[in-house]
Amino acid sequence: MILVAPRNPLNIGAAARALSNFGFGRLRLVNPYHVAFQEARSAVHAHKILRDAEEFATLAEAIADCTLVVGTTSLGHRELQHTLRPLEYAGKVLRKRLAAAPVALLFGSEKFGLSNEDMSYCHWLLRIGTEGSMNLGQAVAVCLYELVRNPVPPTPDKRQAATAEELDRLTRLLTEVLEKSGYVHTEGADSKIRRLVRRLALAGHDADIWLGMIRQIEWKLKSK
Amino acid sequence: MILVAPRNPLNIGAAARALSNFGFGRLRLVNPYHVAFQEARSAVHAHKILRDAEEFATLAEAIADCTLVVGTTSLGHRELQHTLRPLEYAGKVLRKRLAAAPVALLFGSEKFGLSNEDMSYCHWLLRIGTEGSMNLGQAVAVCLYELVRNPVPPTPDKRQAATAEELDRLTRLLTEVLEKSGYVHTEGADSKIRRLVRRLALAGHDADIWLGMIRQIEWKLKSK
Repeated sequence: MILVAPRNPLNIGAAARALSNFGFGRLRLVNPYHVAFQEARSAVHAHKILRDAEEFATLAEAIADCTLVVGTTSLGHRELQHTLRPLEYAGKVLRKRLAAAPVALLFGSEKFGLSNEDMSYCHWLLRIGTEGSMNLGQAVAVCLYELVRNPVPPTPDKRQAATAEELDRLTRLLTEVLEKSGYVHTEGADSKIRRLVRRLALAGHDADIWLGMIRQIEWKLKSK
Repeated sequence: MILVAPRNPLNIGAAARALSNFGFGRLRLVNPYHVAFQEARSAVHAHKILRDAEEFATLAEAIADCTLVVGTTSLGHRELQHTLRPLEYAGKVLRKRLAAAPVALLFGSEKFGLSNEDMSYCHWLLRIGTEGSMNLGQAVAVCLYELVRNPVPPTPDKRQAATAEELDRLTRLLTEVLEKSGYVHTEGADSKIRRLVRRLALAGHDADIWLGMIRQIEWKLKSK
C-alpha cells in the first residue's frame, strides 16, 4: 500500500494497523509530511509495519517494482481520464493479481486525494461508493477488507505484466521521440502519454519489444 | 449504531462520518466518556449525525426500540456464550432485517470491547476475521461497508474497443516506420507485429491517438 503525501500521523498509524489486521505487510509513503511520519513512527505502539515503512521522494520510485498500480478516489463527479471500477469488482481483480505479482494500491492525501499527476501513473482507479469522502484510515480498512474477503482461488495471468519502471522507461522514450518528430506538445501532454501507455496493459516481454522498436526509431531520427 | 463507553473523541467522530458515508442516520452512545463526547461534538466539522446523537445511561434503554441487537467482537478465542457469525454472513442477515425494523449494531469501548453484561443483550455476535483487534473507527467503517455492499455484476470496460480495421491500419503504419528506421526485419516479422498490436487491448479512441503519433514520426523520418 502506498500513501501519497499523508499529513496526519493518526492516519498513517491507522493504515499500518489495518494492513496488519488484514494480513498485509508493506507500507510505502511518498513525500509524507515529515513531522507526521516521525510522530506516527515513534508512537508507543507503533506497529512493525510502520517501523519498516519505506519513504520515497516520488511516486514513480515508490511503484517501480509493481505490475499493477491502482489509485483510489471517492469522487464520482470529477472528470476522470481513467476507468473507474467499483470496489467490489476491483477487489476481485486485485486479489487475482496479488497472487502473481506486486501490486500497488494508492491513497492520496487527506485533503486533496490523488492529483491528476499521481493518477496518470495508475492503470485504473477504484471507488468506494460512499456519500462524500471517507476518512483515510477508514478508506484503507474498507479496501483491505474487500481484498481479503472471500478469497478466490488464484488463477493468475500467465503473462507477467510490465513493471511500473518498464512502463516509465517506455513513456520517457516515446515522449522523446514524439518531441523530436514535432508531435504537438500540448498542455499536460506528459500525463496524457503516461496514461496512454498504462492503458496498453503491456506484458513485460512486450514492453521490451516496444522499447527496442522505439529505440531504433530514435536512433534513426538522430542519425539522419 | 450504538457505541458503548467510547473514550476517544476521534473515534466517535469517525463513527459518525462512516454512518454518513454509507447512508445511515442514527448514532447512540451509552455511557460515553463525557469529555470525549463533548469534544467530538464541538469539533468544527462535527457531522449532523454527531450533533443529533442520543446519549443513554444504560444499554437496555439505548436498544429498547430495536428488534434485533447484534454485538461486534474481534476476539475469536474468548469463551463466548453467543452464536458468532462472520461479518459477511452477518451482513446479509442484517441487510434483510434493516429493511423491516430498527436494528442495533453495538461496538464496545476501544480498550475492552463489549463486556459480558453488554453481550447478554445481544441476539448474536458478529466478528470481522482480522489478526488482532481493529481500531474502532475502522471496524465501524468495515461493518457498514458490508451492510450496504451490493453485489455488483462486473461492469465491463465502457471504452469501445478498436476495430480490426483500425488495428490493421496501425499495424501497417508501424511496420512501415520500423522498416524505415532499419528495425531488424526477421522472418515472420509482419505477423509478430500484428500480434503485438493486438495484445495492446486498444480502445478505439486510443488507436486514433497512436495512429496520429506514428504518422507524425513517419512524416519526420521522410522529411529529414
